[in-house]
Amino acid sequence: MRIRVILPVSHTTLNKGAFEEAALYASPQTEISIATLERGPQSVEGEYEEAMAIPGILYRAQEAEQEGCDAIISDCFGDPGVKAARELVDIPVVGPAEASFLLAAALGHRFSVVTVLQSVVPMIEHLVTTSGLLTRMASVRHVNIPVLSLTNKAAMKAALYREMISAITLDHAHVLILGCTGMTGVAEELQQELLAAGFNVPVISPVAAAIKLAESMVSLRLKQSRLTYTRPKECNISLSDGRLLAGKIA
Amino acid sequence: MRIRVILPVSHTTLNKGAFEEAALYASPQTEISIATLERGPQSVEGEYEEAMAIPGILYRAQEAEQEGCDAIISDCFGDPGVKAARELVDIPVVGPAEASFLLAAALGHRFSVVTVLQSVVPMIEHLVTTSGLLTRMASVRHVNIPVLSLTNKAAMKAALYREMISAITLDHAHVLILGCTGMTGVAEELQQELLAAGFNVPVISPVAAAIKLAESMVSLRLKQSRLTYTRPKECNISLSDGRLLAGKIA
Amino acid sequence: MRIRVILPVSHTTLNKGAFEEAALYASPQTEISIATLERGPQSVEGEYEEAMAIPGILYRAQEAEQEGCDAIISDCFGDPGVKAARELVDIPVVGPAEASFLLAAALGHRFSVVTVLQSVVPMIEHLVTTSGLLTRMASVRHVNIPVLSLTNKAAMKAALYREMISAITLDHAHVLILGCTGMTGVAEELQQELLAAGFNVPVISPVAAAIKLAESMVSLRLKQSRLTYTRPKECNISLSDGRLLAGKIA
Amino acid sequence: MRIRVILPVSHTTLNKGAFEEAALYASPQTEISIATLERGPQSVEGEYEEAMAIPGILYRAQEAEQEGCDAIISDCFGDPGVKAARELVDIPVVGPAEASFLLAAALGHRFSVVTVLQSVVPMIEHLVTTSGLLTRMASVRHVNIPVLSLTNKAAMKAALYREMISAITLDHAHVLILGCTGMTGVAEELQQELLAAGFNVPVISPVAAAIKLAESMVSLRLKQSRLTYTRPKECNISLSDGRLLAGKIA
Amino acid sequence: MRIRVILPVSHTTLNKGAFEEAALYASPQTEISIATLERGPQSVEGEYEEAMAIPGILYRAQEAEQEGCDAIISDCFGDPGVKAARELVDIPVVGPAEASFLLAAALGHRFSVVTVLQSVVPMIEHLVTTSGLLTRMASVRHVNIPVLSLTNKAAMKAALYREMISAITLDHAHVLILGCTGMTGVAEELQQELLAAGFNVPVISPVAAAIKLAESMVSLRLKQSRLTYTRPKECNISLSDGRLLAGKIA
Amino acid sequence: MRIRVILPVSHTTLNKGAFEEAALYASPQTEISIATLERGPQSVEGEYEEAMAIPGILYRAQEAEQEGCDAIISDCFGDPGVKAARELVDIPVVGPAEASFLLAAALGHRFSVVTVLQSVVPMIEHLVTTSGLLTRMASVRHVNIPVLSLTNKAAMKAALYREMISAITLDHAHVLILGCTGMTGVAEELQQELLAAGFNVPVISPVAAAIKLAESMVSLRLKQSRLTYTRPKECNISLSDGRLLAGKIA
Repeated sequence: MRIRVILPVSHTTLNKGAFEEAALYASPQTEISIATLERGPQSVEGEYEEAMAIPGILYRAQEAEQEGCDAIISDCFGDPGVKAARELVDIPVVGPAEASFLLAAALGHRFSVVTVLQSVVPMIEHLVTTSGLLTRMASVRHVNIPVLSLTNKAAMKAALYREMISAITLDHAHVLILGCTGMTGVAEELQQELLAAGFNVPVISPVAAAIKLAESMVSLRLKQSRLTYTRPKECNISLSDGRLLAGKIA
Repeated sequence: MRIRVILPVSHTTLNKGAFEEAALYASPQTEISIATLERGPQSVEGEYEEAMAIPGILYRAQEAEQEGCDAIISDCFGDPGVKAARELVDIPVVGPAEASFLLAAALGHRFSVVTVLQSVVPMIEHLVTTSGLLTRMASVRHVNIPVLSLTNKAAMKAALYREMISAITLDHAHVLILGCTGMTGVAEELQQELLAAGFNVPVISPVAAAIKLAESMVSLRLKQSRLTYTRPKECNISLSDGRLLAGKIA
Repeated sequence: MRIRVILPVSHTTLNKGAFEEAALYASPQTEISIATLERGPQSVEGEYEEAMAIPGILYRAQEAEQEGCDAIISDCFGDPGVKAARELVDIPVVGPAEASFLLAAALGHRFSVVTVLQSVVPMIEHLVTTSGLLTRMASVRHVNIPVLSLTNKAAMKAALYREMISAITLDHAHVLILGCTGMTGVAEELQQELLAAGFNVPVISPVAAAIKLAESMVSLRLKQSRLTYTRPKECNISLSDGRLLAGKIA
Repeated sequence: MRIRVILPVSHTTLNKGAFEEAALYASPQTEISIATLERGPQSVEGEYEEAMAIPGILYRAQEAEQEGCDAIISDCFGDPGVKAARELVDIPVVGPAEASFLLAAALGHRFSVVTVLQSVVPMIEHLVTTSGLLTRMASVRHVNIPVLSLTNKAAMKAALYREMISAITLDHAHVLILGCTGMTGVAEELQQELLAAGFNVPVISPVAAAIKLAESMVSLRLKQSRLTYTRPKECNISLSDGRLLAGKIA
Repeated sequence: MRIRVILPVSHTTLNKGAFEEAALYASPQTEISIATLERGPQSVEGEYEEAMAIPGILYRAQEAEQEGCDAIISDCFGDPGVKAARELVDIPVVGPAEASFLLAAALGHRFSVVTVLQSVVPMIEHLVTTSGLLTRMASVRHVNIPVLSLTNKAAMKAALYREMISAITLDHAHVLILGCTGMTGVAEELQQELLAAGFNVPVISPVAAAIKLAESMVSLRLKQSRLTYTRPKECNISLSDGRLLAGKIA
Repeated sequence: MRIRVILPVSHTTLNKGAFEEAALYASPQTEISIATLERGPQSVEGEYEEAMAIPGILYRAQEAEQEGCDAIISDCFGDPGVKAARELVDIPVVGPAEASFLLAAALGHRFSVVTVLQSVVPMIEHLVTTSGLLTRMASVRHVNIPVLSLTNKAAMKAALYREMISAITLDHAHVLILGCTGMTGVAEELQQELLAAGFNVPVISPVAAAIKLAESMVSLRLKQSRLTYTRPKECNISLSDGRLLAGKIA
């Protein structure tokens, strides 16, 4: 099984972390590949950057289908372009946020998300609302670290731990979700540290949740319903100018 | 007061209808101008086409602000780019769908939307869900006429009337919303015909609702909250390459 | 366009503030007039006082229609008599609370209301619940100042500012609503002060929101649906004894 | 225990039916008394008539408390004046609609209400919404018979039976509620007839539900919370002019 | 009228308190009897213990019906076996949690539950969710005292008082519910103490609420709907081995 | 990875179908084993039968953990004992209904369930309600075939197809879920037949969904939160009498 992970940025700084996180949890039968955009934002920390990244994501989604991939993951916790890509292609398209919410709902009563910045909190609350799981959400917290500064893993982990303790003790969260796909390599460590502090709770890596949901759909030969996601009337035409569609900000 | 109405398409076929509908309901003090995209879809009838139109809409939104407009309307019932544009500019940005739902909520117990095609029904239901007004919605129906065929006004009106009668009698709708901004010039006529049939119900033109909401915000010196819509970190840079951002499909 | 603003009290102390707030935001084409009740409470700070004011409000509503007004505002944040008046007359009837909730929903993710006393908090929460917007509400706070003491503008503003800061920082409100129509002349000043404190958020005056919604309805030739608000069978008869209907408390 | 049942009308036509229905289900220890209004509507079939009845109901509520009654029932399915009366008096005040919804919720998965006219359907849906039980409601249907024509018991029963069968088979109702307190003397008969037709479902008389809830509150020495229902500041004064407060329509 | 109160435990330590609480609030016409299980847990403080108690509860429910009881109460705040027993027997089956939520909803805007341990908090939140009343719930708090230690009445009351004050002042509760049927003999005292502290709020004993709801159903000749609770196909057979079904843990 | 599938019945008739359905979708690394109960119902078609099966399921769950299994599936669409088993063991416990709802939510806007009998419809609606996904559910339909008659595969498939067409065309379902784990071997065939009829929609086998969710949890080293599912205080003791706990009906 081949899964294409599309990073909604125009650089390759995040590729290694994204690949390692995906590969760590993928089945032995799964082959992971990473794509980035020709033009796109440096990071997605708001609705505007997300919107500018989506044409490029859609181009990469169609490319992935044409290259024979079995499923696509839009590798950002805003689930950018997921709905549009589901219209465009005939293979499963998975969003890490949605995958995380659904997995969390099977693990405990209420979940909290800990994300990067205040600017993405309303976006995540919109995603929870459309998923239907608003009554299962305890809170959305943030560590106040921009995506591109998550490379300082120690600082990221310390800040995540602090907010997770608050989510548990103040917001009554029972399950925790890392609210940025750039928060790689820390889910299990945080789960261990919370356990050591007396909180036996699951910590969900959104990339991991997305990989497993994509693998599940492919195994079950399921993909998005065409009654929700109608195939667009002009999508072949759009490819003729595809490269330009991969928008560029910087 | 100057309001810029942005059509999310790359042709000018819809300009006249859009202008007339907006001008019909605008205050005498309001000056309406229409913009279309350099590159964009022929029409927006799904998530994919909406996504491809958004970069161009955002370019036009920033242009409108720089040209001194007081408010912006994204002239499509999918409210494309409204959230992203609210981050980008410092003037009110209004979506016709949201404006219609909110106005309908003040006019009666439950509203129905009648839109063009099945492909946009889930999009509209998502918009109602995030607005919070799902319990106020009776149904979303469609006339099965593509946007660009709405030019046959008689056929459009007959189909709308038929679905509106069903919305009232079968779905218990008390207020009706035209679910496409291309359905211009018929709201009041349909209201009259429904009245003649014994149904004294309001029929909302989404363009009209958007104009009035935009005028209200400008009059009240209100604009989107920066706690929901954080200004993007790189938006000035993006303008240097703005023309390319206006994505192109056909 | 003529809009009648009905104060649900039997004195004229509040007339000047109500008129100035309404006139400040009304369009040049709009003529504002104020009515008070022959008999009614000194102020409305609970369900009982609201109930006692409603017959008088309804009398004034019918009078306004007969005198050729184009729309009616029930000038109290409990929206007293709005539903009953919509049955009684054939011109739009607007409630300031409902108008404020709907406007707030278009400006940011979640709103807080800051009202006068604890006694009206449950009433406001009921209004939000029936509007459908409960998931968009962050909190209802109060300044613990009775309506008739709001004349001390400095004290009112200081208390409002304090609660608004709490609404933003503790309840995660992104939009603020003044929860009493007697809180006149302070919305824009508070918005400026919050901005100076680093919170770029809209502050909604309920009178202003109601004026704009009423003007919008009249402009769009829309009024309440008769499927929700059936015309009462005996309303002409009631007028014969109208003056007595204007209940009196003190 | 003494329970005062207040009819929101100015005539005594409904007294006998109301008393018999209440007495049929009251405990042996309970003494039922009926009050009507000096001035009030002929019947309550909309928001306007309800609003005009409330001052008179409040006058009777205070009178009931002063005469030593232990609880009050506002005998109409719109629950007129219940919230205001809870502020005014220190004895339990019960609304038949609320009492019926809560009882129905303990008897089956979803309930339907069958009421008199379309004009009261939105009022009942508002009451269900504020009760919180909207997801437990299957439908609100009506027999299209005005309150004062319910005296034709055979016609009423036939129409109720027809709508109840529709509620069960089309709306998936599991519990049925008579949606007008004037529908007396038929709940058990309808329950038997539905059973004979193969539907073993409870049929709730709203007067009966209200009597039992009132008796329960008195037995448990519970009454409305003063944190929700603050005592009005001027309620003693209002009594000086009480008789006039009992509004009159016809 | 005969009501059987079934304690979901295999010992008789709790019988006296349960009987006294039930008898205190029962009508003079009501005869209360208590049953315990042959095999069952020492107490129910989680889903596992509840599940192990249910077969024994169902055996006792069928026994109660065969012995001519008019109604059954499953005497635990998890409402164990209530849904299954409603299928099994043809007399009303009442759960104290559901009865308390419904009664609370008629007494004030929002209620809080104060229960024994954190382990039952999610169970209670599930019960509120299925009841439909989640938007009426302020919070579920716990005193951190196991069921079998509630015998120290002074300690229990002090802890309950402390949490109730927090529920009122921090969670904005207007009505309070004792969240364990073992919290007997303290509801009225706590109500008095809260009143003395300035909080005029109802405190609901779940046993009392259940007794009153059961008496109401019997008086009104109502029982659970067979459309929700279908009679099981093999329930007579099960009785042949009934004694063994009454599961035993210790 | 070893997954134990527990059938909540005391016979082995369903073993072959359950094993084949699970094995068909399991990863190559997964080893499936089936367990049945010593004592239990013939089938689970209501709350009573479910309750009687749960002690036996819990016994089998503890046995599975002791035998080194990595995850447990309670193989019935009522998710019997899932919550209690999550308290009891330290390996993931998955319910097929919950797994199906969550998977469906990622595939389309609204799902319908088609189950066996009317008697389980309310149970399934309760499960959807506690999952939080009620607004994502289109309907729960049934084929009116008891579990043990599903062996007639042609009749089952024809009835399922008929109800699925109704779910799509009348209830606006976009995703379909088989509402009984006994409906094995037909999900993909039905998906093909619906596609041939013009409906390109996913059809979910609940056993398959559960296998994939269990595999995902094990791969991600996640299990239920101990803040939701507290370990029961007496669970070791219970094992001493474990065999008797496995209740028997017939």
